[in-house]
Amino acid sequence: MAEYTFYTNPMSRGQIVRWALHEAGADYDTVLVDWADKPSEFVATNPMAKVPTLVHHHGGHDHTITECAAICHYLAEMTANDLLPRKEEKADYFRYLFFAAGPVEQAVTSRAMGWSVDDPQKQGMLGFGSYERAMDVFDGMLSNRDFVCGDRFTMADVYVGSQVDWGLSFGSMPERASFTAYAERVRTRDAYKAAKAIDMQLIAEKQDD
Amino acid sequence: MAEYTFYTNPMSRGQIVRWALHEAGADYDTVLVDWADKPSEFVATNPMAKVPTLVHHHGGHDHTITECAAICHYLAEMTANDLLPRKEEKADYFRYLFFAAGPVEQAVTSRAMGWSVDDPQKQGMLGFGSYERAMDVFDGMLSNRDFVCGDRFTMADVYVGSQVDWGLSFGSMPERASFTAYAERVRTRDAYKAAKAIDMQLIAEKQDD
Repeated sequence: MAEYTFYTNPMSRGQIVRWALHEAGADYDTVLVDWADKPSEFVATNPMAKVPTLVHHHGGHDHTITECAAICHYLAEMTANDLLPRKEEKADYFRYLFFAAGPVEQAVTSRAMGWSVDDPQKQGMLGFGSYERAMDVFDGMLSNRDFVCGDRFTMADVYVGSQVDWGLSFGSMPERASFTAYAERVRTRDAYKAAKAIDMQLIAEKQDD
Repeated sequence: MAEYTFYTNPMSRGQIVRWALHEAGADYDTVLVDWADKPSEFVATNPMAKVPTLVHHHGGHDHTITECAAICHYLAEMTANDLLPRKEEKADYFRYLFFAAGPVEQAVTSRAMGWSVDDPQKQGMLGFGSYERAMDVFDGMLSNRDFVCGDRFTMADVYVGSQVDWGLSFGSMPERASFTAYAERVRTRDAYKAAKAIDMQLIAEKQDD
């Protein structure tokens, strides 16, 4: 058995985690989960029944990790290489990771659902305020650096970069110079290309069925 | 100057970060931010103009950290004591932290705004599915343990515990046995009591104005 079991569907955010697995050089087995027929051991592992879900077989225990950003960071922790932030990079690393997983994610999904409020007091109750505001701030945060931690790539870029990559691909984020330049930078990673190739192949095979 | 500058308002999630500062034994100065009149150096530091915001004066640099969960974890990283997870605790620690900052936060704020969808396909696009589902899963996640990492308190409990503590206090989370028992456990922390006492005093002073 490989060190990790990776529950995914190629047409899901599992693509983010596969990229992270390749960045980490992790040894993993893939279990494909069909939306309509989810394996019972998968639902037992993650009651949200969401992909991606990762199980780490380690020290005689099975550790389940869910939430894309958590899985990315966990893989960096287990690999303990240059993907982890150095001490002076930790503020940016964790700030951007939680900003992308919180306000950005909420802004994008709320907009997709057609949800918004104009009342400034109610906007204050939302961590993202409004879609426009969250995008403006995110734009500013990515305008003065090449990567989350400055001039070098870390695991935070797998998650933050995927949010931008997906946002631009699906039109859920606006075309801004900082977003397109950042997406282009992260797409050059060898691990990105290797992981995407696997998922694209799986999607193609499925369409041939 | 203290090692940290803490921008907050006593009637905000700044209460979570003050608790974290006290758990970490951090040396900090407080800057109170009024909703109606935000200091310009604060808005420059965090363009979202959200409290809490923490600035770490370290090694000749000012490191800005935003997002409650990121700040809590950052303080644990800088303190590097028992508040950080051990290797075998890291899966739960990061999973619960991102689950609380993502799906739980989104479920609670969406409900407060009156936003929901019944269409299962659209629910699948939401990281939390539905409010009821997110609460059921969160309930299950807290039913088989005393703290996020099992039997001992870590920094993840400051954030996850605050979500539950606030959720029960404001009625934004349902009364469930696992939630009330967990909230009671985290409220016994000395750092919780010390931090809350300061914010309650600040709120009382403001009401006397």
